[in-house]
Amino acid sequence: MSAAKSTMSAAKSSMPSPTIASRIDACRTEMKKGGCSAYLITEHVDTFYMTGFSGEDSAVIVTPRAVHVITDRRFEAAAAKEVPWAKIHMRKGVLTEEIAIVCQKTRITSLAFQADRLTVASLDAIKKGAKGVKFVKAPGIVSQMRCCKDDAEVRLMQKAVKVAQDAFLVMRDSIRTDQTELEMAGLLEFEMRKRGASGPSFPTICAIGPNAANPHARCGNRKVKRGSAILFDWGALLGFYCSDLTRVLFMGRIPPRIGDIYRVVLDAQLAAVDAVKPGVRVCDVDDVARDLIAKAGYGDYFSHGLGHGLGLEVHEGPSVSWRSREELRPGMVITIEPGVYLDGVGGVRIEDDCLVTQRGCRVLSNLPKGISEAVL
Amino acid sequence: MSAAKSTMSAAKSSMPSPTIASRIDACRTEMKKGGCSAYLITEHVDTFYMTGFSGEDSAVIVTPRAVHVITDRRFEAAAAKEVPWAKIHMRKGVLTEEIAIVCQKTRITSLAFQADRLTVASLDAIKKGAKGVKFVKAPGIVSQMRCCKDDAEVRLMQKAVKVAQDAFLVMRDSIRTDQTELEMAGLLEFEMRKRGASGPSFPTICAIGPNAANPHARCGNRKVKRGSAILFDWGALLGFYCSDLTRVLFMGRIPPRIGDIYRVVLDAQLAAVDAVKPGVRVCDVDDVARDLIAKAGYGDYFSHGLGHGLGLEVHEGPSVSWRSREELRPGMVITIEPGVYLDGVGGVRIEDDCLVTQRGCRVLSNLPKGISEAVL
Repeated sequence: MSAAKSTMSAAKSSMPSPTIASRIDACRTEMKKGGCSAYLITEHVDTFYMTGFSGEDSAVIVTPRAVHVITDRRFEAAAAKEVPWAKIHMRKGVLTEEIAIVCQKTRITSLAFQADRLTVASLDAIKKGAKGVKFVKAPGIVSQMRCCKDDAEVRLMQKAVKVAQDAFLVMRDSIRTDQTELEMAGLLEFEMRKRGASGPSFPTICAIGPNAANPHARCGNRKVKRGSAILFDWGALLGFYCSDLTRVLFMGRIPPRIGDIYRVVLDAQLAAVDAVKPGVRVCDVDDVARDLIAKAGYGDYFSHGLGHGLGLEVHEGPSVSWRSREELRPGMVITIEPGVYLDGVGGVRIEDDCLVTQRGCRVLSNLPKGISEAVL
Repeated sequence: MSAAKSTMSAAKSSMPSPTIASRIDACRTEMKKGGCSAYLITEHVDTFYMTGFSGEDSAVIVTPRAVHVITDRRFEAAAAKEVPWAKIHMRKGVLTEEIAIVCQKTRITSLAFQADRLTVASLDAIKKGAKGVKFVKAPGIVSQMRCCKDDAEVRLMQKAVKVAQDAFLVMRDSIRTDQTELEMAGLLEFEMRKRGASGPSFPTICAIGPNAANPHARCGNRKVKRGSAILFDWGALLGFYCSDLTRVLFMGRIPPRIGDIYRVVLDAQLAAVDAVKPGVRVCDVDDVARDLIAKAGYGDYFSHGLGHGLGLEVHEGPSVSWRSREELRPGMVITIEPGVYLDGVGGVRIEDDCLVTQRGCRVLSNLPKGISEAVL
């Protein structure tokens, strides 16, 4: 189908769903505030969020009266199905050229763009073709909107959590001595797939013993032994939304030092989850966990922020660390995941996914985390 | 460990491996040509390629006399082990701030950067802190170097191909009617993991019947039936390197139309693989496949390029399409994957990974692809 034909088909289109329509409205309000006549979205999760169009390598331009979707023939059928109400442009050349062409054709005079997503080279390429257009940096419009989830998004995230949990319980039952980190991670991902996940939301971490002293451990051929502590950090991607959980299990018995830090981390995690409420500053929640860990003497061994926002991406807004003074708002979904890491010994991190509600917090995940329940 | 201590430790460091040393040399030669006193690398696969350091969210600055690695405490142990010869900077703030600090401390006057990788916002943030530094766009230095693989890289890629193939053969034997796309894709990824893959090199595609008419199909709950054509596009990530293969299987019998296009695509694929030699232009290889498909009447249904470069990333240089006049060189690894897609009916794509050698081409993959061998 040619670009012309596609654009014609928009005339007889239906309307976007109420959710998508309200996102587009919110985007237009922000555009107006910034004095821009158009907003260019180039990041895949953001083009999906704003339009419901699932195609990759595509762009969206929101103008006061239209929404342009710029894609290629691989996603022709998806575009016809998902965004029949949009003006669809099928590019033949590279994406940046087609963006410039759409700017010229639709007489855009000022274009806001995602400065935190677009590369310097892509911006140059668009500018080259779009003469006379004023470019305005607008990094945060969509990522700000994405911070607070609506009910449909929360339902998908709850499903992504459930699939991750159900898969974990099955995998947990099959852990035996001599299994490798790669085997356990593989089985966990397989069980998530079987339950409808389109994949893991990030590469699964399974780390035995000292390997868990690295918060970003990679799986290898280390084997489970009696007395092993095994850290799992995993999540499911389902309906485009992520879950993200961490648990530590013990094979047969609890190594005393790891047991000590487990209790400290669990206390800190429970206290931080309790502190999650609308109106509370993120840094104050981080403080709750960090203070408890410092009081127990492990302050130097909690080497990362308390958590992060979660949604279409496994790391998104709001930022959840000691640096952020942002206040929590209803609809935000954040991870709470304090950890303590002892080089050469091991590490403990416990992570749950929390929805900020009108009055407090609803923890989406409910896998057991008491230390005695962690013994296999 | 503080930044100061880390930097000190570089004094008593060993040297980089000969491979890494020669990459750094090549980078310095390019820097000199461009008249730059330093080169900033911000893309993870590129920082890994240039130094062997595996940490994410990190940056590398190559100067004429030193290599600076800017990372954070999560990767402290990895940095000490992997790049003891480099000047290691442990950042406490955000990465862009620390890059600016290193520029100031080391008195860099002109800094080349990866314009095709760095976002507009990140460049702004670095510029803010690095007063007086001249910034020079240098998009392709590392990606150009990465196009041609050395023997060690080829060995890793051969392993990544073998793991993908072995896993496929096991999964293939277990295909039964009523299995879903998600189950088959999950099993394939699980079997790759069991064989040492750190994961799939991209989300596995398993597409039954009409779903395969979309070259970027997503797995769902469609079930295998007698007479189903099933397209698999998958690869393993192993030792940081990717493989990428596509095969179509038939459950019990071959649907006539899909059988027709299978023969056309296979002819085109074999002919294109035969055309891969050093000195041949990429567009001419693309032509070989495209002409055969067009002559069979399916020219409009081969809607993507012939393939792509493969290595640390699943899509990298060289570009393999009708648009590229670049000549093939020994050491390049490319996919050859023509396809024909019929809306509502299905699709066939056949893909192998090919190493350009001194005289021709070595196909790294050797899974059967004759049509009769594709019947389960």
